[in-house]
Amino acid sequence: MARIPVPDLMAFCAKLLAAHGVDEEQARNVAENLVWSECVGRRNFGLLRLPVYLERVASGAIKCPCSPRFENLGPSLGLLDGDDGFGQHAGMLAMKHAIELARGTGVGAVGVRNSNFFGTGAYFTHQAADAGMIGLAMSNSFPKVTAHGGLGAVFGTNPFAFGAPRRNGETLMVDMATSGLAGSTVRQHITSGEPLPEGLAVDVDGAPITDPEKVGGGALLPFGGAKGYGLSLMVEILAGVLTGAGVTHGVASMYKDKQEPGHNGHFLIAIDVSRFMPMEAYYDRFEAMVADIRASAPDGGEVLLPGEMRWREYAEAQERGIELSPTTIEAVSPLAAVTDAGAPWR
Amino acid sequence: MARIPVPDLMAFCAKLLAAHGVDEEQARNVAENLVWSECVGRRNFGLLRLPVYLERVASGAIKCPCSPRFENLGPSLGLLDGDDGFGQHAGMLAMKHAIELARGTGVGAVGVRNSNFFGTGAYFTHQAADAGMIGLAMSNSFPKVTAHGGLGAVFGTNPFAFGAPRRNGETLMVDMATSGLAGSTVRQHITSGEPLPEGLAVDVDGAPITDPEKVGGGALLPFGGAKGYGLSLMVEILAGVLTGAGVTHGVASMYKDKQEPGHNGHFLIAIDVSRFMPMEAYYDRFEAMVADIRASAPDGGEVLLPGEMRWREYAEAQERGIELSPTTIEAVSPLAAVTDAGAPWR
Repeated sequence: MARIPVPDLMAFCAKLLAAHGVDEEQARNVAENLVWSECVGRRNFGLLRLPVYLERVASGAIKCPCSPRFENLGPSLGLLDGDDGFGQHAGMLAMKHAIELARGTGVGAVGVRNSNFFGTGAYFTHQAADAGMIGLAMSNSFPKVTAHGGLGAVFGTNPFAFGAPRRNGETLMVDMATSGLAGSTVRQHITSGEPLPEGLAVDVDGAPITDPEKVGGGALLPFGGAKGYGLSLMVEILAGVLTGAGVTHGVASMYKDKQEPGHNGHFLIAIDVSRFMPMEAYYDRFEAMVADIRASAPDGGEVLLPGEMRWREYAEAQERGIELSPTTIEAVSPLAAVTDAGAPWR
Repeated sequence: MARIPVPDLMAFCAKLLAAHGVDEEQARNVAENLVWSECVGRRNFGLLRLPVYLERVASGAIKCPCSPRFENLGPSLGLLDGDDGFGQHAGMLAMKHAIELARGTGVGAVGVRNSNFFGTGAYFTHQAADAGMIGLAMSNSFPKVTAHGGLGAVFGTNPFAFGAPRRNGETLMVDMATSGLAGSTVRQHITSGEPLPEGLAVDVDGAPITDPEKVGGGALLPFGGAKGYGLSLMVEILAGVLTGAGVTHGVASMYKDKQEPGHNGHFLIAIDVSRFMPMEAYYDRFEAMVADIRASAPDGGEVLLPGEMRWREYAEAQERGIELSPTTIEAVSPLAAVTDAGAPWR
């Protein structure tokens, strides 16, 4: 399989989105988000999802064009009504706004409502880190996960992401589902037919599930029991309750409710590092911590930072191009065939 | 064992602290923190630790009196130099400041350096919630926990806490060590002689430990592997790297380094709920979420919110008084005996 230069894939992706009714601004932002996800090897947040996104664009569940509106809630606080556009678009606008607020006051926080699935939170925390800020990003999502001690899905996989700038530009990226399994991992198992490990999903009566096809009729468990439940609740409160977005069953499924806007909510925070100390002093302190972490590696082994493998994949993608997975090509080919957005893998 | 009325325990505790050289202001704030921890049933953060605190006061490792100084880093951002006083005191001052900043701009964040162990983060997030704010509180601590994939302790148990106000005043309190086991739980096992569950601690070669006495020579594991490691790093970066506090091995042990200030760092955030919507609208949305959670309870069962059991204990303590554990009484009695702070359990 030939590798595709990153700019070519970006151009193709934007053209494909535009050909299927996405307005230019969203097409550009979403293409950048999806291709970045491919570059860092988060393929489940990349082009693979184009078919469902474009079905939702066609049905009006993702609005194109959309008119996101900011409401100023204070010198450090904003609320973005995403107007049912792409979550990737709203998330990017919201983090941009949080960064601007943080430039003015030291911290900026922006809630988002009337949005859709926003992809990987790491994209937005890297956006903050790129601006010299520490970033947090979270989103609620369609119910798939039990409350600790409960039966049946109440919460989404409610991702939580944290990013911090490093001197070498390779943002430290913590990015996790607050469930034991991410929704995208369940879909990978459905595709591969591989059973799930035990202890991650249960049926309606609380009995263990390992068949990935059955998770939809049951529920995932929060990771680490009470701890994952606590983090999931934090995300639901900040991204859902506080923003005016959908909460628990008020968030629609991207897959099951293709006619319906997602009603997702997000919450983004940026903290200006340079207000604490000069960036070089921060980097010195940061890399001293990294040295302590590295020193704990076992003989012949290596201790990685969160996101570090992602940056290795990113560097390879920049240098050698992106190799799309066969599943992605299979998913995207029919979309490319009906437009003149000549697929770059041909 | 007689139950002690809360005000009596508070008065005793403050008097005892003062009799052992703690200045009036810190004595009052620390007593309130410790007695609150007893009320909510977090006994490991209560009076049990008075002996080590007072040894540290005697050695000068905890400075009494101390002169914490705020540095204004922006309209929403502050840095508190704790001047090596009690962490409970510095944490409370810092959250108070974060709340004031949030009143002005919507969000307030305060970093703390030159502090000591701050007890339970839930105390500070409840402080925020009591003021109608969502609160986050975190602290780094003496290395006891491995980096994911590494050998030997690099991070502290680095607690992370989140609190959100509820209409009934019972703050939703998420409060977790980012290790699989809290340090206080290890100490409970040492006291009881009960072995640790497997998979939570390892020796210097990475082999499992279940003997709680051996954890000091080995290390705890982050909870949930890479996820706990990521959260632990987030706490280390925000509370340590960013504030100018000690980082990793730069944080001293409260127990092993009794002559040395802790060099702990904290990070506290307050977000003003009322900027998003009227409090009553927020409470309506919050309780609708709670109803969804409750509805997922199994037949005859109950799904609790994080912190909910704590508030049941708190209500009982207010009504019937506090029953100190025999271990606590044994620990505190010698301290009371050498002063005129007549112990309320006699």
